[in-house]
Amino acid sequence: MKHTLAVLVLNKPGVLARISGLLSRRVFNIESIAASLTEEPDITRITIVVQGDDQILEQVVKQLSKLIDVIKIQELPLGRESIERELALIKVKASTEKRYDIVDIVNIFRAKIVDINPETMVIELSGDEQKIDALCAVLNGHGIIEVVRTGIIAISRNPVPIKQDIKIDD
Amino acid sequence: MKHTLAVLVLNKPGVLARISGLLSRRVFNIESIAASLTEEPDITRITIVVQGDDQILEQVVKQLSKLIDVIKIQELPLGRESIERELALIKVKASTEKRYDIVDIVNIFRAKIVDINPETMVIELSGDEQKIDALCAVLNGHGIIEVVRTGIIAISRNPVPIKQDIKIDD
Repeated sequence: MKHTLAVLVLNKPGVLARISGLLSRRVFNIESIAASLTEEPDITRITIVVQGDDQILEQVVKQLSKLIDVIKIQELPLGRESIERELALIKVKASTEKRYDIVDIVNIFRAKIVDINPETMVIELSGDEQKIDALCAVLNGHGIIEVVRTGIIAISRNPVPIKQDIKIDD
Repeated sequence: MKHTLAVLVLNKPGVLARISGLLSRRVFNIESIAASLTEEPDITRITIVVQGDDQILEQVVKQLSKLIDVIKIQELPLGRESIERELALIKVKASTEKRYDIVDIVNIFRAKIVDINPETMVIELSGDEQKIDALCAVLNGHGIIEVVRTGIIAISRNPVPIKQDIKIDD
């Protein structure tokens, strides 16, 4: 079962190491992690996608919430209640003859071409994981040179932000 | 000085903990980190943006490259030689009267509205860090409820991918 966790932490050295250490000791497989500053400069928000058993997750969430510098942790609701997005940059082989085929694919996916040179193109796409997987699968026929993905970030559709709406019980 | 590192690792538990542990022991301030699968299912690519001294960075890169499960590490060139992008989801207060003002801002930034309800909107924007900072600054006047950012990902304009073009010397 896949779970998306939003973790708010104080922006201090070592906090990410403690979180990833705890997750890896629990043999939780981290599918992706994305950490960046928030609207408040002292606070980093980390989005972690993990694969694992529901019961173990509950324990892990409790333990994470007790770590130093962890402010809040919340599992984001699945499906329609949250918005999940990921960004990818894909460098693909694009000789002059093949270039228009690739432009067609890019337009179908509503992606963007962000770089072009005589041999290659770089394509930018944001969307859910499946959309990015699908574009990669189509471009594979042309020869993908390199892919960089951000990992999923997620936000709830609920007007109330994480900071106010949850409290972890011990 | 800001540095963007691309790190290719084997997709095994504990590798992220070792990397973030090493960086935090060196009191390197991690500005952002984005880790996700690549075109090869066993390999995760991590993009790390750190602030720190050039000389310490050189040492850190050497030490990182010696960690178990780290395949390659490369500092991405600055400026025009690399493409850097980030994705943000921004939830902003949007009462009926204010909604059109926000739509105008969204159009100017070529951002996207991905959710709307009677009280709020969620806006998606990809771009470099400065563009996202600028949109946040403008939306701040309307009341930002929540921001999630992926952290920077980067790809070189060079047709040759990381795997082939570098070798770390001991």
